[in-house]
Amino acid sequence: MHPFDIAMALTPVGDDRFHGATSPAYANMVGPFGGTTGAVLLNAALLHPARLGEPIALTINFASALADGAFEIEACPVRTNRSTQHWTLRQTQGGEVTTTGTAVFAVRRPTWSAPEAIAPDGLPGPDALPRAPGRLPWVANYDMRFAHGSPLAAHDGPERPDSENAVWLRDEPPRPLDFASLAALCDCFFPRVYMRRGKIAPIGTVTMTTYFHADAAMLAAQGERSLLGTARGVNFRNGYYDQSAELWNDARQQLASTHQVVYFRD
Amino acid sequence: MHPFDIAMALTPVGDDRFHGATSPAYANMVGPFGGTTGAVLLNAALLHPARLGEPIALTINFASALADGAFEIEACPVRTNRSTQHWTLRQTQGGEVTTTGTAVFAVRRPTWSAPEAIAPDGLPGPDALPRAPGRLPWVANYDMRFAHGSPLAAHDGPERPDSENAVWLRDEPPRPLDFASLAALCDCFFPRVYMRRGKIAPIGTVTMTTYFHADAAMLAAQGERSLLGTARGVNFRNGYYDQSAELWNDARQQLASTHQVVYFRD
Repeated sequence: MHPFDIAMALTPVGDDRFHGATSPAYANMVGPFGGTTGAVLLNAALLHPARLGEPIALTINFASALADGAFEIEACPVRTNRSTQHWTLRQTQGGEVTTTGTAVFAVRRPTWSAPEAIAPDGLPGPDALPRAPGRLPWVANYDMRFAHGSPLAAHDGPERPDSENAVWLRDEPPRPLDFASLAALCDCFFPRVYMRRGKIAPIGTVTMTTYFHADAAMLAAQGERSLLGTARGVNFRNGYYDQSAELWNDARQQLASTHQVVYFRD
Repeated sequence: MHPFDIAMALTPVGDDRFHGATSPAYANMVGPFGGTTGAVLLNAALLHPARLGEPIALTINFASALADGAFEIEACPVRTNRSTQHWTLRQTQGGEVTTTGTAVFAVRRPTWSAPEAIAPDGLPGPDALPRAPGRLPWVANYDMRFAHGSPLAAHDGPERPDSENAVWLRDEPPRPLDFASLAALCDCFFPRVYMRRGKIAPIGTVTMTTYFHADAAMLAAQGERSLLGTARGVNFRNGYYDQSAELWNDARQQLASTHQVVYFRD
């Protein structure tokens, strides 16, 4: 069983509730990697018998550090329309709220479609690049190859005016892409403040929003191959900053755009 | 009393609940302007006696069309930490959920701060530009002046490869900026799909996330003067697209970044 599937495992216990547990393979500095936390909340909606359609948007708020061990998720389809469905998501440990969220699902139909943001061109492919090392357990479950800008090289560098980078990303070992793994991949971009300041300092994501541009067929077509990720900071001010990113498939189609606010200390 | 303050009026009725009503001045095609709906949900948290700090992030999901008339808002501080507070927000009419949301509030402290996204330079100021007309009632409460790209001029045009524009924005009549009005201003950017396709078609925002980079003192310092708004589309696919935008003060500091997913029909 792939480590990601172990982290996503949920047992339905009725009344929109599911039991799960944190996964040692995805341990972070404190508690688990936020990407898997967000993904397992989305997975509760994906597994819910009343689900309509596929994810369009997901917002996850990290209200407190998650302790290693069991948790409960409540995923409520609070409003189901003809082609859209609105969810509220809540994760608790011992009755205390650790994570809140909302999701929008929809049944899409074919319409005029077009990109506006464009993936960068002319980057070396993943096979031409070394795999980035990582000290934290969760990083071992991802194959990351920096194609432009390296958050790791910035750790002892000078301050920089931007934190743009491009990175090839996939699960390690390889795993066919699905909505839950795409949601987790959207949190794999290292903190932009490290790149801007040229040093590591305490940080924590407080909220994260992901918009899904792919349907299940597009994800299945990408399969196990690396996605291209592009990311940059937006604005850093008095303890909080935001960063935005995109994930692209082999055909340079955008699969997801994602935004998050990160708390940082000086 | 300013029309915006009428739209923001809430009566606390205990147990995290507030009563309010839609405002004819902010009527949209169907129901009220989504910007005021999001702002009044934020306002419930702002008015709540247990509030800690100021808004950092707000997500609003438009679950169904709001009917003209009374509504109830539930704003629950589900987790209060030392310097952050997490809220769940819910608006109902007749017991049915019309809008869901979450917010993060925080007490900021001074740290290293820097922009990464930069406001465009060399644009004509608001006094050099005509006020944009608007057919819908809510538009009359905003003074909008297009400094680069006009969503209105695009209505009978050809398809375009991008939907970037810059617009001066303020309440009309002028009103001192605060968090609620900033949240509403973040929804004043016209639908990017009109600009891309050169035609108007049915649309509706399904979810919107705003990150606040300003504190109350920065908002007070800007007062009643126009903000510069910059916006662009991200990706359009099979009935849904996302657009991102920023609002800037006179000193070219970013006050908010905002993202939304919009449903559209061909």
